[in-house]
Amino acid sequence: MRYSNLFGKTTKTIPKDIKLDSHKLLVQAGFIKESTAGRYYMLPLGMLVQNKVVEIVRQEMSQAGAQEMITPVLHPLELWKETNRTNEAGFELMRISDRRGAEFALGGTAEEMFVDVVRKYPISYKDLPFNLYQFSSKFRDELRARGGLLRVREFLMKDAYSFNLGEEDFKVEYQKMWDTYMKIFERMGLRTVPVLADNGYIGGEYSHEFIVESEVGESRFLESEDGIYRAHEDVALFGLEPVNPDEEEKPMEIIEQPQWVKTIEDVQKHYGVEANRTLKNVVYRNFQGDVIIATIRGDLEVNPVKLEKVLGETVPLAPATEEDFAAIDSKPGYIHAWGHQFVIPRQATTEARDCRVIYVADRSLKTVKNMIGGQKEDTTDSINVNYGRDFTHEHEGDIALAKDGFLTEDKSQRLVAKKGIEVGNIFQLGYHYTHLMSGATYTDKDGAQKPYYMGCYGIGVGRAIQTVVEVHHDERGIIWPESIAPFTVYLIELNSKPAGDEVYSKLQQAGVEVLYDNRSDVSPGQKFTDADLIGIPVRLVVSPRTEGKIEWKKRSEKEAVLLTFEEVIAQLKG
Amino acid sequence: MRYSNLFGKTTKTIPKDIKLDSHKLLVQAGFIKESTAGRYYMLPLGMLVQNKVVEIVRQEMSQAGAQEMITPVLHPLELWKETNRTNEAGFELMRISDRRGAEFALGGTAEEMFVDVVRKYPISYKDLPFNLYQFSSKFRDELRARGGLLRVREFLMKDAYSFNLGEEDFKVEYQKMWDTYMKIFERMGLRTVPVLADNGYIGGEYSHEFIVESEVGESRFLESEDGIYRAHEDVALFGLEPVNPDEEEKPMEIIEQPQWVKTIEDVQKHYGVEANRTLKNVVYRNFQGDVIIATIRGDLEVNPVKLEKVLGETVPLAPATEEDFAAIDSKPGYIHAWGHQFVIPRQATTEARDCRVIYVADRSLKTVKNMIGGQKEDTTDSINVNYGRDFTHEHEGDIALAKDGFLTEDKSQRLVAKKGIEVGNIFQLGYHYTHLMSGATYTDKDGAQKPYYMGCYGIGVGRAIQTVVEVHHDERGIIWPESIAPFTVYLIELNSKPAGDEVYSKLQQAGVEVLYDNRSDVSPGQKFTDADLIGIPVRLVVSPRTEGKIEWKKRSEKEAVLLTFEEVIAQLKG
Repeated sequence: MRYSNLFGKTTKTIPKDIKLDSHKLLVQAGFIKESTAGRYYMLPLGMLVQNKVVEIVRQEMSQAGAQEMITPVLHPLELWKETNRTNEAGFELMRISDRRGAEFALGGTAEEMFVDVVRKYPISYKDLPFNLYQFSSKFRDELRARGGLLRVREFLMKDAYSFNLGEEDFKVEYQKMWDTYMKIFERMGLRTVPVLADNGYIGGEYSHEFIVESEVGESRFLESEDGIYRAHEDVALFGLEPVNPDEEEKPMEIIEQPQWVKTIEDVQKHYGVEANRTLKNVVYRNFQGDVIIATIRGDLEVNPVKLEKVLGETVPLAPATEEDFAAIDSKPGYIHAWGHQFVIPRQATTEARDCRVIYVADRSLKTVKNMIGGQKEDTTDSINVNYGRDFTHEHEGDIALAKDGFLTEDKSQRLVAKKGIEVGNIFQLGYHYTHLMSGATYTDKDGAQKPYYMGCYGIGVGRAIQTVVEVHHDERGIIWPESIAPFTVYLIELNSKPAGDEVYSKLQQAGVEVLYDNRSDVSPGQKFTDADLIGIPVRLVVSPRTEGKIEWKKRSEKEAVLLTFEEVIAQLKG
Repeated sequence: MRYSNLFGKTTKTIPKDIKLDSHKLLVQAGFIKESTAGRYYMLPLGMLVQNKVVEIVRQEMSQAGAQEMITPVLHPLELWKETNRTNEAGFELMRISDRRGAEFALGGTAEEMFVDVVRKYPISYKDLPFNLYQFSSKFRDELRARGGLLRVREFLMKDAYSFNLGEEDFKVEYQKMWDTYMKIFERMGLRTVPVLADNGYIGGEYSHEFIVESEVGESRFLESEDGIYRAHEDVALFGLEPVNPDEEEKPMEIIEQPQWVKTIEDVQKHYGVEANRTLKNVVYRNFQGDVIIATIRGDLEVNPVKLEKVLGETVPLAPATEEDFAAIDSKPGYIHAWGHQFVIPRQATTEARDCRVIYVADRSLKTVKNMIGGQKEDTTDSINVNYGRDFTHEHEGDIALAKDGFLTEDKSQRLVAKKGIEVGNIFQLGYHYTHLMSGATYTDKDGAQKPYYMGCYGIGVGRAIQTVVEVHHDERGIIWPESIAPFTVYLIELNSKPAGDEVYSKLQQAGVEVLYDNRSDVSPGQKFTDADLIGIPVRLVVSPRTEGKIEWKKRSEKEAVLLTFEEVIAQLKG
């Protein structure tokens, strides 16, 4: 293709709010263009990359025996009602009605659609397992879209759904997809690490995110020093040592405390103790309207995802509001570790009952004696508080956030905190959808109807593309891996039009994908700058100085050499 | 792929309302499955076909220099407001709002989006022309969906938009796309004829539909006997001979007429004349609420599309309602060819004016003298009515529908009426969008900003696939052309599992796309039936009877022969 005809040329005008290098480079080099916030045009250069990524994913999924198909974009809303996902999807669902009044959801994921098409057919145990996937536009009504293709409202996703005979059968598929994902990302030039992750409302132990380490990533995970344990911070486990095991339990007292003592730091300063001797309460509200008080050792932070798991919440908890504090007659910083009740009764959202105050204790409370805090008033507080003696909560468990330097669960080594970009995930759905959707069964050997066991496997195509740019670029531009580069060769002609045209034509005849910078109205410097910015793997230059030969330079290298046309072809084919 | 693992197997339970063979076969053979009316799952077999069709279109579009990209599915509604298409799109637009209140249209076509992305860049005359295309889901809120993939509410469309320097430049692109479309459809196994078509609200002379002749098609067109003139019935021109040129004009009279004389047929019977001696009035209403009375020779029918063109209407006319008849103090069958006015004044929909009665005369009125009809009351009618003498209409033109057997425009031959399925169209957009959308300009040589001239080129992928089935099938099933068949070979194993497995494995190693019917729980007859139904080009059978060889049979032929494996490969590669 001739650069002069290319739509979506390099540009210098970049919106100021673009922060990430990868986002900036994709815009600047003419791969993507924003339509409205969080919705992008994939320009011709970007489309060439996307088509190559899609083909890699397709090949590897097919190699793993998965079958491609596609569902309508508009999902009948009644399917989402069957699985209660109109309220609880975890991302904002967009809805639409047609002129006849039929209601639809714009799919954010497609579990219901795939179960629906499968249950339309009689399935025998002999048909199982199978794995169905599609490439399709997904919609998330995100409040904030940012970071270019990293967090968008509309995106191309490869989503796969496996239908298995049971958990054992699923495990085989899970491993197969794990291996397939490693191959896919490797072929794209991404080094991913599978990280144990939260499985949301599904529960269960099989859930991994494929993460590319990156400082700009939003996924935080903890890795053991030996690299064997890797878990998303939402679920990472860690070991706790006792703080003061040899201390005697003292009688709890309510004592006077200066009014300036408000935060954990104030308490540390006032009493001259470490934060791990203090007690902290953090307040949330659930979907029903109940108030949740999480009590934890003062040096630790509450991990809301772990807290949700302990409580069995299927909808994410929200921070408590002023209204919640007022309803239990308290205010931030003055929450008691015991005794709060609703003083203004409140009806639960979906059940005919009053809301409750639910106390949850982190296991860390058992590692420290004679804590400070628990019943704070304006000028008093409690000291020598001991969990299990002075108060006990209805729920107990690990609700603490793991952090860099914490011990591993077996206390043999330290955890290292890392950041990265999630480009794919695999997780078990188990019987969740098959139990909620009627008729989602197969006929077993004995003639009985049994629900199939399911798994789910996603790759965000656009996000993966931008991640490639994030990890493969320098100060001058993108450095595309050959496997997904929009073209193989960027051919520059400098004051040598007939020679340049001839090389272009011969390269095309040889089946090489060439972007030919044939512009006559820009400087040589501009051509070199654009070549580096766009990042095509091989740059060729034809100019009077190359004297009948061709200058060859790889984008990833500094050295340029003069080669004959035949040598260029040999290098490209090699 | 092993048939046992294939999702979407052949089925015998076909919904009763399926009428078309092609629709029935695609469902029965496991290529598609309905989600809700007019929205289909493309099953794995169908997806393999679709991917091949997409690749053919992509190759040929790329060969023609077009550049693939993709727009978001959700189009900002303000773009559609810029071009007044929220009311006048000609198909029902689906709208949706996000949680922040931003409004979007679900794209039915994407002119606005492509103009919008192009106008975001500075475009020089040196960049033009270029042609951008995408494959994307399109949405039409059709009242009635029917015929499987032929008329749906959601479908994959390849839509291309060319940006040209002017009309001359556009004509070159138009011819290129014409040639490209012929190649694309030929490669898919479709023989298409380009048929001159209506250009809707755009106007202009460049508009062709690519039609596959078929009795089940909804597109009606007229072809001259020599095959040179082909036009959709919406726009087909024809020649008119004078009916009674030698007759003297007689004085018009209002005469008594029996009350049973109501229709044109009654008039013919009562007066003993041909229908071409009578005068007919047909009543419509426009978007504004005006009443349109079209007066035409009694043997002809009004063509609403031609009528819209004569009136310059951009929104389709609707048949008059009871309310319309009442508003002009009349009723069906008793419309006068002159003199009607609104007796109940009515305000125009979008303009501050009263509605009007607008009379339009077909040119046929000038071909006949002394017509019967024009001022019909209960027991009277007018005779010897002469257009131009007794009445003259505000608008005159060709508003008649061409029919089988009519003369061509030059009266040298007859027109033949044909039916077919439209699988693609190409048409000029001219300056329509660039004039309506601000900033849709390029910088010309002289530095002036000029609007680009546009063209638009569509292919309905699903409709094309079903059309292939409609023209390539027999009573036993589909007969896929090799170019888009889901697999090349359907391998059947009959009581010869090890031998069958070996052939399957060797075919795969040789790079042949094989669907391997390895089922052990169905009869040989069932396997042969399914092979014929699914319609893969080559059927191979391994059984004790084939004695170490392989039975080879093409789906399109009757003869089966025994070949060695090497001979099979040679045949396949040949």
